[in-house]
Amino acid sequence: MPQPYLVKPGRKVKLSDIDPDDTGSIKSRADAEALLEDDCEALYGLQERLYAENKRAVLVVLQAMDTGGKDGTVKHVLSGLNPSGVEIHSFKAPSADERDHDFLWRIYQRVPRYGNIGLFNRSHYEDVLIGRVRSLAPMKVIEKRYDSINRFEEILDDNGITLLKFFLHISKDEQRRRLEERLNEPEKHWKFELGDLREREKWDDYQEAYEIALSRCSTKHAPWHIVPANKKWYRNLLVARTLRKTLEALDPQQPKVDFDPKKIKIV
Amino acid sequence: MPQPYLVKPGRKVKLSDIDPDDTGSIKSRADAEALLEDDCEALYGLQERLYAENKRAVLVVLQAMDTGGKDGTVKHVLSGLNPSGVEIHSFKAPSADERDHDFLWRIYQRVPRYGNIGLFNRSHYEDVLIGRVRSLAPMKVIEKRYDSINRFEEILDDNGITLLKFFLHISKDEQRRRLEERLNEPEKHWKFELGDLREREKWDDYQEAYEIALSRCSTKHAPWHIVPANKKWYRNLLVARTLRKTLEALDPQQPKVDFDPKKIKIV
Repeated sequence: MPQPYLVKPGRKVKLSDIDPDDTGSIKSRADAEALLEDDCEALYGLQERLYAENKRAVLVVLQAMDTGGKDGTVKHVLSGLNPSGVEIHSFKAPSADERDHDFLWRIYQRVPRYGNIGLFNRSHYEDVLIGRVRSLAPMKVIEKRYDSINRFEEILDDNGITLLKFFLHISKDEQRRRLEERLNEPEKHWKFELGDLREREKWDDYQEAYEIALSRCSTKHAPWHIVPANKKWYRNLLVARTLRKTLEALDPQQPKVDFDPKKIKIV
Repeated sequence: MPQPYLVKPGRKVKLSDIDPDDTGSIKSRADAEALLEDDCEALYGLQERLYAENKRAVLVVLQAMDTGGKDGTVKHVLSGLNPSGVEIHSFKAPSADERDHDFLWRIYQRVPRYGNIGLFNRSHYEDVLIGRVRSLAPMKVIEKRYDSINRFEEILDDNGITLLKFFLHISKDEQRRRLEERLNEPEKHWKFELGDLREREKWDDYQEAYEIALSRCSTKHAPWHIVPANKKWYRNLLVARTLRKTLEALDPQQPKVDFDPKKIKIV
């Protein structure tokens, strides 16, 4: 069964060792889409059980270079679920008020409630990614954040929130193709941001910042998954599959009721 | 085209005049489901445009007696939309901290962001419904809330948030059938709450409290829609249809970009 690269705790990640074009044992888009449909159907039932149980949550963290497919993954993997049990949050550049707090303050407010599947489109990792590449804080401060992140994620795990962290891994060529697509198709113009080009100039620095974050913050309680993401259909399948397997392992149970249904009469 | 009962501003609502079994011109569940599918498909495209425009929002308010179908409506009307653009919030009994603020304080925090479709599963109306029936505040305080609600909703409308308020109208007999179903089907036990029976005893008081709220808070900028809801398929169709028509009238536009796509070269 195809699966993302699991970053073993303590292992040093080298992104150039992982082929963004990889599609594992999946031969075609059609094969992947059939498997994805099956996964999405299973996810629907699993989410209903998680929601009924109302004791634990799953938090998916999506990180990627610009155009890496974060929005597309949400759309293809989570559309179709009951939206009452899904919480998506996109983190943008922090506001002045948010910058007046520690970097995890705004993150904690978006942790999903029990019973829900939450998803962070970008996350606290930006503070060791763009934060590092653009020197948005002194290096001494940034260096401390990796430990803070690990502690924070362990708190979540201890409290019934299972983390699933995905890095969607695309190549620099693939990013160029996707940016060009946004320029060439008028209905995609609004997705194009000039700022993305400035970040692209720092491609190598970002790859390095990702390698550091993936290496230092892949822990037993919250490992990183690297998803080859040049092929969107393979990316969607790996994320859906991993989410499904995680929920199956949690095996949420409908809560027992503390009354005898036979003894209740409705007038 | 079937549509919910629009409460004209200033008009006094009498719920017993509206048949909860009504299905308008729709002859069968199959007909309704075919129309619903068409509406949901249209909603998908309209939501994408609202999201791209990123300037206005729609806020759906769902109110109903227990078992009235709020959860089912969310599931059938909003599943399938891109979850990145949907915000659902279920309001429960207020916390001690929330009770230490005015009743709209916790509501305002959940107003959807621009670009999104928000939905309140229960809302600020509970403060003039259970609040009134159970005397949770002095009558003088409750009486003032209707005006506060109208002012609050006008603020939203002035700021690009279109409100769509639905009262899902079921009969007392239908509620009994649905409560019995929850008791008879083990996989629905967890949805049954003994407290619902206590509220059922106050059925007439709740109907009256709804009549007052629907009459006083149906305004030009935020009218109430009464949805005959004994037939779930008719209810889903009316809500989807009204949401679709509202979005079509908003006619969201992809924002214009401030650069010339032809002049940009990606290296």
